[in-house]
Amino acid sequence: MGVGGGGSEVSTGRDPVRLSVGRDGAGKAARAGQTNPWPDGTILGKVVWKAASLDAWPEAKVPGDLVHAEFMFKDSKKYAQTYGWGWGRWLGMEQKPFDKGAEVCTSCHTPVQDRDWVFTVPAVFPR
Amino acid sequence: MGVGGGGSEVSTGRDPVRLSVGRDGAGKAARAGQTNPWPDGTILGKVVWKAASLDAWPEAKVPGDLVHAEFMFKDSKKYAQTYGWGWGRWLGMEQKPFDKGAEVCTSCHTPVQDRDWVFTVPAVFPR
Repeated sequence: MGVGGGGSEVSTGRDPVRLSVGRDGAGKAARAGQTNPWPDGTILGKVVWKAASLDAWPEAKVPGDLVHAEFMFKDSKKYAQTYGWGWGRWLGMEQKPFDKGAEVCTSCHTPVQDRDWVFTVPAVFPR
Repeated sequence: MGVGGGGSEVSTGRDPVRLSVGRDGAGKAARAGQTNPWPDGTILGKVVWKAASLDAWPEAKVPGDLVHAEFMFKDSKKYAQTYGWGWGRWLGMEQKPFDKGAEVCTSCHTPVQDRDWVFTVPAVFPR
């Protein structure tokens, strides 16, 4: 997994630090503006850490302990029941599968249902 | 340039959103704990954006306009005059070279001179 040139996003809020990344195809789609809907085959990943501080720079929020890694797999046919996305979450450094069902994911993502269920706005990188 | 498995860091503070990344060698060094000093050949990059908000999630800080991209190139001989690092900054989407000298970089990095002049603490990723 790599950070797509135009396909990554960094957000902080409710304390955690989040890094959203995409497979190369996601970066290509993002640069082409094809994000609503994202094309089939898109894979988005999000890594979430607890926020920590740097001793040398206490105002900065940096990634501390890993919370979980999450993925969205776009396949409008295979995942038609869950809005065109397969939803996955793996917990902690041991990456234990989350087993409480995709509705946990989709309920939180409901505010962005008109953005193909994706919070991320791709970050702009110089080319 | 890719995010090294253990070689990236996300920080926010004084408003901007920063993403630190490293070439593969930097990730390898970070995973091996070789960060003080970082080995010759290490390249660290940092991309800085103004902080923006998501309409659908106003509490989140996300990357807005690009401010600049910065790099540190480790070569303890070539850059002996500037603490073993070559320092570079390119401004804005047009990536205009910053021409005010490395002392601008090193003065801000002085608080981390005992950490080989690097603020970044590598983020932990699941393997």
